[in-house]
Amino acid sequence: MQVAVLAHEKFPERAKTAVGVIRYSDYDVTAVLDRDRAGGQVNEYLPGVPDAPIVSGMEDVENADALLIGIAPIGGGFDESWRADVENALNRGCDVISGLHYFLSEDPEFAELAAANDCELWDVRKPREDLTVSQGIGKDVDAEVILTVGTDCSVGKMTVSLELARAAQERGIDAAFIPTGQTGIMIEGWGNPIDRVVSDFTAGAVEEMIVEKGDEYDYLFVEGQGTIIHPAYSAVTCGILHGSMPDKLVLCHAAGRESIHGYEDFSIPPVETYIDLYEDLAAPVHETEVAAGALNTMDIVEDGPARNAVSEYAEDLGVPATDPVRFEKSEVLEALL
Amino acid sequence: MQVAVLAHEKFPERAKTAVGVIRYSDYDVTAVLDRDRAGGQVNEYLPGVPDAPIVSGMEDVENADALLIGIAPIGGGFDESWRADVENALNRGCDVISGLHYFLSEDPEFAELAAANDCELWDVRKPREDLTVSQGIGKDVDAEVILTVGTDCSVGKMTVSLELARAAQERGIDAAFIPTGQTGIMIEGWGNPIDRVVSDFTAGAVEEMIVEKGDEYDYLFVEGQGTIIHPAYSAVTCGILHGSMPDKLVLCHAAGRESIHGYEDFSIPPVETYIDLYEDLAAPVHETEVAAGALNTMDIVEDGPARNAVSEYAEDLGVPATDPVRFEKSEVLEALL
Repeated sequence: MQVAVLAHEKFPERAKTAVGVIRYSDYDVTAVLDRDRAGGQVNEYLPGVPDAPIVSGMEDVENADALLIGIAPIGGGFDESWRADVENALNRGCDVISGLHYFLSEDPEFAELAAANDCELWDVRKPREDLTVSQGIGKDVDAEVILTVGTDCSVGKMTVSLELARAAQERGIDAAFIPTGQTGIMIEGWGNPIDRVVSDFTAGAVEEMIVEKGDEYDYLFVEGQGTIIHPAYSAVTCGILHGSMPDKLVLCHAAGRESIHGYEDFSIPPVETYIDLYEDLAAPVHETEVAAGALNTMDIVEDGPARNAVSEYAEDLGVPATDPVRFEKSEVLEALL
Repeated sequence: MQVAVLAHEKFPERAKTAVGVIRYSDYDVTAVLDRDRAGGQVNEYLPGVPDAPIVSGMEDVENADALLIGIAPIGGGFDESWRADVENALNRGCDVISGLHYFLSEDPEFAELAAANDCELWDVRKPREDLTVSQGIGKDVDAEVILTVGTDCSVGKMTVSLELARAAQERGIDAAFIPTGQTGIMIEGWGNPIDRVVSDFTAGAVEEMIVEKGDEYDYLFVEGQGTIIHPAYSAVTCGILHGSMPDKLVLCHAAGRESIHGYEDFSIPPVETYIDLYEDLAAPVHETEVAAGALNTMDIVEDGPARNAVSEYAEDLGVPATDPVRFEKSEVLEALL
């Protein structure tokens, strides 16, 4: 499927969804919409991914079957400056894929245009109506379940789960990635947006995916969310920990991060604190252990210092660690499989 | 306000909401609807509360301004055998108060009848549309925040918070009860149904109430939910723990309970495990301590053995404990205030 990715004024640094989709999805990305960087090429900013032109709006996109909203303002609202792009897309018969909290399918104008042009409006973050409470049966599946957990939000848990699942697949292992957030769901084409379900159903919405895939695969790499000590989002993290009943955890951290992103009053404690919290909280439901670490070294330019940071992180954890985007993954994979 | 309470076939043992409302609300309960026990009196089953007749349906209720649904089937659906009672209530101009997951205000027939008769359909469990994420500011209010936490669901956290708040008020202390579940909301007439909000907003929906009341009172007694090790509901518990940022915790347990209610695969660990989990998980967000215990001794008939169970529980916890429904509360209150 040919897809245009909207990332106005934010590509690539503040366009986490756009970058995730470009890097990991099977979509053929034919253009990125960013009015500030129009005329450029994706590869100028993101080397090593399939290249595409950056254009100022949907009217400059030649081929597309869908428009994908690749950014989210704080609060997940719809920015009215994007309306012309969505209209243009629908008028030419493109589907629109969005992970915003604002549901495009409930916007009367978009709903009408979509119906008139026989297009789909896929609101990735709209939970299915039939989700319900956990039955406590995630532990009964055949697959080994490996969950990424974090010291904070935005440290790269989705990326780590995807990188490890793919590295396992390349070794011939029957592994699947279990998406729990909007970018992961867009990449895989299915999944429950756990941060958006009714709070009583948090664990249940994860469990349902584990149960659905758990007897088909040998390993499930579950995308974690937030951190267990997040002042706002810990409920989501806790529900995923108990709902997925992981056998092993990968503790993800961003090098140099010292306080919770956006909540600077709250410091990030030593990694040992996280190991104890995740393991102790999981144990009464299902025993697990932090078996590996992943360090996001994006902010360290040189490879030497980045490697040193990874070594130090592994030493603090007492288990193998890597930056799976930048360095080799075999040692970490062996600790998990 | 005169209220009839619907509790068909479940009064009083399986009618937690009905009993909570009869015991703690300011409503004048004029009748209980239970077709299995029609002809009896409330006091035959619940001594020490204002008495009322038990009748078989709304047509036998003489005076009522509202009908309150006081039971919830598993899953929170609407039982069609109650439809005639709701119709009767609306036709005679009564409001209807419900904490079901099934929203009466979205039932076309009820919505029409309510509009025709100028009645309100109050779906207590329907969250307000404007709830959002926590800002991490619960700790900044003037009031001391005291949260009940549990070893399981249905151990009496709401009751303990209400009993302690009222005992504090009787001492002349400026204390408020903060409701987080449907029964508490019905009793107080306001509050956010935390188990029903979007999971990303779990902590935020609690924080909003703390911030709203926190500078008006000296003590806030926050109603806890679930348990931090619940296979299905721990997300709600975790969000309340971090969103309310309590200064002190009261650990609630039901005497003799050995496994998680409805999830018998999962044993209840020793109380020390809960103390460590709640305190350690809270600490990175806001330091707190288990300062008292509450033991639900409902299943122990004789006072002597019940007192022994409370003493043993206090010893295990290392802090004062009581059954606040049955025994004195002063020692526990002093540990909290």
